[in-house]
This record gives sequence, C-alpha cells and structure tokens, in this order.
Amino acid sequence: MRALVIDRQLSFRSDYPDPQPAPGESIVRVDLAGICGTDLEIAQGYMAYRGVLGHEFVGHVIHSSNPKLAGRRVVGEINAACGRCAYCAGGLGRHCPDRTVLGILGRDGAFADLLRLPDENLIPIPDSLADDAAVFTEPLAAAYELLQQIHIPLDKSILVLGDGRLGAIVGLALRGEGYEPLLGGHHREKLDRLSKLGIAAIAEDQLAGRHDFVIDCTGSPAGLARAIDLVKPRGAIILKSTAALEANVNLSPLVVNEITVIGSRCGAFQPALDALAEGRIDPRPLIDAGFSLGDGVAAFEAARNPLNFKVLIRPT
Amino acid sequence: MRALVIDRQLSFRSDYPDPQPAPGESIVRVDLAGICGTDLEIAQGYMAYRGVLGHEFVGHVIHSSNPKLAGRRVVGEINAACGRCAYCAGGLGRHCPDRTVLGILGRDGAFADLLRLPDENLIPIPDSLADDAAVFTEPLAAAYELLQQIHIPLDKSILVLGDGRLGAIVGLALRGEGYEPLLGGHHREKLDRLSKLGIAAIAEDQLAGRHDFVIDCTGSPAGLARAIDLVKPRGAIILKSTAALEANVNLSPLVVNEITVIGSRCGAFQPALDALAEGRIDPRPLIDAGFSLGDGVAAFEAARNPLNFKVLIRPT
Repeated sequence: MRALVIDRQLSFRSDYPDPQPAPGESIVRVDLAGICGTDLEIAQGYMAYRGVLGHEFVGHVIHSSNPKLAGRRVVGEINAACGRCAYCAGGLGRHCPDRTVLGILGRDGAFADLLRLPDENLIPIPDSLADDAAVFTEPLAAAYELLQQIHIPLDKSILVLGDGRLGAIVGLALRGEGYEPLLGGHHREKLDRLSKLGIAAIAEDQLAGRHDFVIDCTGSPAGLARAIDLVKPRGAIILKSTAALEANVNLSPLVVNEITVIGSRCGAFQPALDALAEGRIDPRPLIDAGFSLGDGVAAFEAARNPLNFKVLIRPT
Repeated sequence: MRALVIDRQLSFRSDYPDPQPAPGESIVRVDLAGICGTDLEIAQGYMAYRGVLGHEFVGHVIHSSNPKLAGRRVVGEINAACGRCAYCAGGLGRHCPDRTVLGILGRDGAFADLLRLPDENLIPIPDSLADDAAVFTEPLAAAYELLQQIHIPLDKSILVLGDGRLGAIVGLALRGEGYEPLLGGHHREKLDRLSKLGIAAIAEDQLAGRHDFVIDCTGSPAGLARAIDLVKPRGAIILKSTAALEANVNLSPLVVNEITVIGSRCGAFQPALDALAEGRIDPRPLIDAGFSLGDGVAAFEAARNPLNFKVLIRPT
C-alpha cells in the first residue's frame, strides 16, 4: 500500500506492507486524515517513533469479523489497550502501560491507504456527518477531555492560550458547550478567523488580569509560566500540549496561590461525535488545505506554516 | 521588646519597638513559637522580607477590645486579609492580594515578646491543650489543607516525599485521619523516629512502583520530577513546599499521564486544633530542642540541622 512513513526522515512510499489484522482487529480504508501538532513533533523525532504517521482519520471498514463494523464508515480511538492490566480493568485503557497508539507508539497510523485497529476502537458514524467534519473527531475529543476531567461552571472566566490548531479546537469546543472563552494568540490573521467563528480572540500581549481557568495550548515550554501569570489564586491550569515541556519555570506560585495544574490528553470520542453530528460544533472553517497521500511531505510543510490551522490528507 | 529580626542577616534585638495594634487588632504575648522551613528560607532572603520572623506560635492575649479574646490563650491564623476585596468576599482571605502575613509579608512575626493580629485571626484554645502541642497548629493546618483541597479515599496509596519537618507533620496528619501513607526520606535516624510514630518510612532509594497520590514535601526543586516518576497515570501530586521551585523539569508526563498537580499552602486552623485537642495527633515527639529568644540565632542553627524535625523558641 501507499503510506507516509517516518524513518529518520519523512517520506512517501508506495511499497509499504499492508496491515495484517490481529484477532479482534479490523482493517479500515482511510478516506480522510488530519495532521496535528503531535505529527509534526514525531516527524522531528519526538517519541522516537518509526512507521506510518497519522492518527486523525475517517474511513471505511473493509475487513472485519464483526458484523456491526463490516462496511461501515468509522472513526477510531487511537489508544489500543492490552485489555488485561489494572488500568484496563479500571476503565483507564488510554493509560494502559502496554498500549499501542495509532501512528504514535508501536502501531502504524492513518496516513496510508489502510490501517488496522481493534474492533472496540472503531465507532460507526452517521451518514449525515461529512468526512471533513468527522476527521476532527479525535482532536475534538481531546478538547472535550478537559471538560470530563474538571467541572467548569458556565460563569467562570476561561482563557485559552495559543492560536494554533489545538487552541482553535478547544475554543470551538468551549463555545459549543456554551462557554465564552477568551483566546490569546500571536497571529493576527488567525485571531481574526477565530473572532469570526464567535471566539473572543485577542493578541497575546493584550492579555491582562487573571482568570479562573487557563488552558495552555501553546505547545511551548513558556506556556506554563505564562499561564501561572494569568491564573487566579485557587484557579486551575489545564495543560493540553504534549510537546516536550522541558521547562525552566518558577513553580512556587503554584503553592503560594494554591493553583491546580491538570494534564489533559486524549478523550472519549462520543461527546465529540455527538457535538459534530448535532451541529453544535462545525470545525470545517479551520481547514486550510487538502493534499493527496503522494503529496504528504508537502502537506507536512503546509501544516508547519504557523498561519494554517488544519491541513488534511486524502488517500482516496 | 525583644525580637529576632531579619535585616540582611538574622539578629537578636532587645530594643525592637512594641507592636501598635490597628483598630480590630489584639496584642498577644508569645509563650512558645516554632521554626519552620519557610523561616529558614526567609532568613536567607526568600520573599525579601525585613522585620520580625516567625509565624507558628501560641500565646496570651494581653490587650484586646474584644471581650471574647482578652486574657485568652490563643493560636493565630497568619494571613491578615483586607476584608474588602473579591477574594475576601469569596471566603478566600488567605489569597487576598492585599494581605499581610505574620512574619512573612509586611507584618512582624512571632519570634518576639509581643505580636499583633486582627481579632478574627485569633482562636482561643482549650486549657487541656499543652503549649508544646498547640504550637504545631499552624503547620498541622497546612497539612490538613491538602485534605480540604482534594478528596483522598482511604484505600488509595499515598506517598509522602521528604523526611523533613513538613513531611513528618503531613505523615502524622494522614495517620491521624486513618490513612496509611508511605514516606520516603534520606535520613536513617529520622526515618526510624517516624517508624516509631506509626508511619511506614523507608529510604528514598527504596521507593518503587507508582502511587495514587504523591505529596512533595522535599522542599527541593528535584521533588516534582521525583513525584512525576512515582505517581500513577491519572494520579495526583500535591506540592507542599513553598521553596522557590525554579525547576528545570520535563513536564510532558503530566500531559501524557494526565496527572493533576495541586499547589497547597496554609490551611484553616480548626481541623488541626480539633485533631490536637482530641489527641488524634500528637506531634510532640517531633520536638528536638527549645531555645530562649535571646538564643534565637542559635535556634536557627539547630533548625538547619537536617537531623532535626522541630526547634522551638520560648520567649517567656
């Protein structure tokens, strides 16, 4: 099959071996996939991953022993847990120490003609949900995860730090749930686009005062220090960036001001799928460009442009 | 009056001006005071504080316009809030931005013959509670604060990092509330003393596995990194050290493992006073030495000895 493969450097290959399903796994033909910040980091060496990149996708099940999946249009949860350890038994499969992760850890990803995932990871989606909206399910689930981890009353002040793809999708998710977040970023063009989507988006250097909740989507080691400056005493900082956060940061305000810091990663798909299917959230204005799989390396170049939110790859 | 004063360096003075009470404040004659880690840091320049040190005390009210306080034996909450701002209105006076803090920020402290505090900060204590137990109310309240901030089920595994005065008092508080914490430290003698007090205390390099809750009482910038290594995914780290935590630490595991970090500082006195008065916690085995106020500089030297838990100063 064709695939976008990282092995020291990123390259397109037309002779990559087809995925071989393990028992209980299905094969999916990828219709559309999205590039996220983690992909860009992995392409630069993060996680020391080798294999097919990509974990945001929508596709069709072309091989499955599960009649509820065969032939269906699906999205897929990216963490494949062992199903036997204490984490899995406790419903925390996304933290299973023996997990593989699609396109990130020990499992070939979605920038390819085909992928394999355990049957229980695959979620059929309604026909009414367009591919270019469904492809946002995974990043939107990561945005919803923070609302699963912490209760945020509607009247609290929320600041989203960062006008990248993660900040944008978190802003949209919060708006879709009735919050009125403020978003601070560095790129005038993107701030204007976000403002038109109903998100109060202003230049980072215009931020002032302190907020009950600060969500760090900067992807920068400096994000935490900035969040500490902008959160109220007894407030909470939610860290969404999976970037290597080797930060030299003064953490004593966390103690003095009794701040809570919550690390937040992937989330359950259903809340995100529901929001997309019900039209509460339409992330499609964030799409900047689409590339064929053969132009995948160019797609990565486009995704690195800081003025772009979301670049898609269409294998079919 | 006599006082232990920090002004570039720590010194005993016999000619320090007596405190002048503002409206609504009382004057307390200090009977017994304790040295804590924050005092040691302030003596080395932390907070850029100038004035009388000390914030753990028990004493007698010798001047008050409040008949419920006059003549009473008291302990005192150390944060004096403005009473007018949004934090104060919301019950968060300990985070009032205009607060003064006894012996720490803009308010002379307890290593002196006399101190002043707002009437509402002073809490009469029962006659049955000995001075050398009551003097632990403030640090014990700081230990209880973490149980106010986060619910810890009794069956969860709790690791206390650090065998200093803070780790010891947190360990005692947890034992007093029915928990069975594990404590890791570097000092064989102190670990043995803590074991005799019913706390499972082992050498830091013997720690293994991961815990649901890790409480960092190391006072060291390395404590957070160690806590990250020893906490379970979806677990919580409680930071108790008010040390200047300028740390170069890789925070990405916080996101990947969805760890919550909770800064925790001072606490309400009543739960600590109740535990002391009811005998659920007896911190007196932690006392290593007592000094007169005139020997306060020597008391600080003793408190810096890493084999000591608690050094007291007795002005009377």
